[in-house]
Amino acid sequence: MGARAGIVVTGTEVLTGRVTDRNGPWLAEQLRRLGLDVGQVVVVGDRPEDLHSALAYLSATNDLVLTSGGLGPTADDLTAQVVGDFCGRASAVDEELADRIGAIVDRLMARRGWARGGRDQEAATREGTRKQARVPAGALVLEPVGTAPGLVVPPAQGDGPPVVVLPGPPTELQAMWPAALAAAPVRAVLDRAEELRQDTLRLWGTPEFALAATLRRVDDQLAGLEITTCLRDGELEIVTRYAPAAGAAYQRLVDAVRADFGGTLVSEGPDGDTLLAAALGSRGLTVATAESCTGGQLVARLIDRPGASAWVPGGVVSYSNTAKQELLGVSAQTLATVGAVSPEVARQLADGARSRFGADVGIGVTGIAGPGGGSPDKPVGTVHLCAVGPDGVLTRSLVVPGDRAAFRKRTVTVGMHLLRSLLLGGPPA
Amino acid sequence: MGARAGIVVTGTEVLTGRVTDRNGPWLAEQLRRLGLDVGQVVVVGDRPEDLHSALAYLSATNDLVLTSGGLGPTADDLTAQVVGDFCGRASAVDEELADRIGAIVDRLMARRGWARGGRDQEAATREGTRKQARVPAGALVLEPVGTAPGLVVPPAQGDGPPVVVLPGPPTELQAMWPAALAAAPVRAVLDRAEELRQDTLRLWGTPEFALAATLRRVDDQLAGLEITTCLRDGELEIVTRYAPAAGAAYQRLVDAVRADFGGTLVSEGPDGDTLLAAALGSRGLTVATAESCTGGQLVARLIDRPGASAWVPGGVVSYSNTAKQELLGVSAQTLATVGAVSPEVARQLADGARSRFGADVGIGVTGIAGPGGGSPDKPVGTVHLCAVGPDGVLTRSLVVPGDRAAFRKRTVTVGMHLLRSLLLGGPPA
Repeated sequence: MGARAGIVVTGTEVLTGRVTDRNGPWLAEQLRRLGLDVGQVVVVGDRPEDLHSALAYLSATNDLVLTSGGLGPTADDLTAQVVGDFCGRASAVDEELADRIGAIVDRLMARRGWARGGRDQEAATREGTRKQARVPAGALVLEPVGTAPGLVVPPAQGDGPPVVVLPGPPTELQAMWPAALAAAPVRAVLDRAEELRQDTLRLWGTPEFALAATLRRVDDQLAGLEITTCLRDGELEIVTRYAPAAGAAYQRLVDAVRADFGGTLVSEGPDGDTLLAAALGSRGLTVATAESCTGGQLVARLIDRPGASAWVPGGVVSYSNTAKQELLGVSAQTLATVGAVSPEVARQLADGARSRFGADVGIGVTGIAGPGGGSPDKPVGTVHLCAVGPDGVLTRSLVVPGDRAAFRKRTVTVGMHLLRSLLLGGPPA
Repeated sequence: MGARAGIVVTGTEVLTGRVTDRNGPWLAEQLRRLGLDVGQVVVVGDRPEDLHSALAYLSATNDLVLTSGGLGPTADDLTAQVVGDFCGRASAVDEELADRIGAIVDRLMARRGWARGGRDQEAATREGTRKQARVPAGALVLEPVGTAPGLVVPPAQGDGPPVVVLPGPPTELQAMWPAALAAAPVRAVLDRAEELRQDTLRLWGTPEFALAATLRRVDDQLAGLEITTCLRDGELEIVTRYAPAAGAAYQRLVDAVRADFGGTLVSEGPDGDTLLAAALGSRGLTVATAESCTGGQLVARLIDRPGASAWVPGGVVSYSNTAKQELLGVSAQTLATVGAVSPEVARQLADGARSRFGADVGIGVTGIAGPGGGSPDKPVGTVHLCAVGPDGVLTRSLVVPGDRAAFRKRTVTVGMHLLRSLLLGGPPA
């Protein structure tokens, strides 16, 4: 590998899980595309000593270190100061920068109609602005996108990696990224980067131990590949990173997986959602949903993609039986005889979604997410799905393990595979 | 602080963001409740040297180290071996454990109808099982929940923290947790833990720099508080951790925030979703949704809570104008004159949701998530919301910044606040 990078994500809110970190994965993917290998992401709370030790840890093995967060006006935002100290550079207020940040804050306050609260509050606000304008000597300032400037801080002694300091809000961080890449100390590291390919195989229905056996059998043909297998909501992903020289070895891996698991190999490239969107788009088909237990997560996943309004007219979430009857035309007699959680109702939901929205394809989902509502006949986790389209009908009934959140995610994935299988063939859902 | 813990999350899939880590936050919260302070979470890929250096980093400052993931049957799963090496304990196959894992694998294969693929595949499967049964000498085995056993590994020399090794799938990790806590080396650390309180204040509409000014002004009264402020989809959270002795200082913080920002203080305890669910439950009210641009995410969030079927009969996602008319009774004339993205249509959506589902409260959302579909009059990010209930009608129109995903999350949060404000009063949405 040519060059490595490490990432520090700061913020007690991320450490405790109240906020899901989006910056670490985003930065890791950007760096990978640039040929930089990311080996570690460290999440630390808002304590200077923890941030300092994280910088020391990552600097020992990386050519570039990046931080996100901790650049706000409150006292717990201390990244710039700690990075400056770590790099051996004293910090001082950049008066011109303070003026520029002050102007931004004034504009924001005016736009929100926010009044300054009197002289004390005014002085405290100005102090917050000046805090955000403290810059380590010799650091390069990346102009603020929100109110916080970023920094590129070279080591004072010249024997450590440069540290790129970026703001926490993902939109600010991403908008500032091109300026960070253009900084000379960062460019010098990127010049040493080497191409690193990443390809993905996706299986649906193969247990991990079966794949493990295959990988073990052909292990001596796979030199130069860094293979990761990952199970997610029932999908088994094989992600491989390799230098261009190992391209032939990667082809041997693909051949072995195809030979042993061709029947469950969903894709050798794009994920199932992308394949499904492309199939709907190229055939000019639309799809509508009728959900109970997944409560809107299936239609939300279909609509995740920009442009989805072209292929998703909409969906109904029908928790109550009345709603199933009135909005989707489910038969009262069916509900009375076999119950709402049944293959028959899944089929009527799919038909109802299709006809109510005038869609080409309809999908119905009914089940018991729990923790309550189960019975000996229909335990928590029972779910029935049905997809109806111009090419036919597919149904799937199963009992999904796990808690309410896991049930809903897994069931949505089964629903996406039911649609994929209906429209594209391949492994059944 | 009495005792500290550090967490290593392994897996290239987490490092690259294909899978969102759920274990780090879950473990951090469990440990905090037990009085253990978590300072760092490190995410590393599937490379032994990176895992080894993460263990060294965390062992230097913590009394307990926990790992999640890397216990599967594939060659990239190497946590048990590396932890054993790090703790100075040689690993060997535990034959009885291998037999127990083999029996689990046989049961899984039978249940899935999965055939072993011939003698080579059979031998490779057995090798995977034996790999999972390799245990460092002197380590305590936590019985498998899936196929992977967990471990509690004390240091060979007695001068480092014990390492708790847990599986990656969250359901397995959580099911194994009580056994990990019962292990003697873990109990010994927990005995040194001290109570650490965590309380949260939530503001809606206060900019962070205004809060920063207040905190700065009263800073000398807040000794002993570790205050974190965090902005999330427009909500400003103040999370404070403190020892019981600093209880009076925390009360001073609450008083200062209440004095300066009483008008935007949503809650001094539970989050808005919890308050809303309690309000609906105690008044016996139901709520139904009609969404376009949020595409099911609003109803999905309402249904996140167990028991939601008692207060959410359902919702409609109506992307197309036809669906808005036919399923929700939006007027064709209104659509023709003011367009689908308008306060008038938001109101008709709310009324339609309320009447179609026979709900007490209806909420309608219509807007432009982008990236396409904007115009000079109605730029991308334009959104109108309306909530109608027994206590009246509330509307909100705004332009939400950010990309499609950020728009949808932020708009769902505004919708939840519109419902909270309608049912509970307090700050407007």
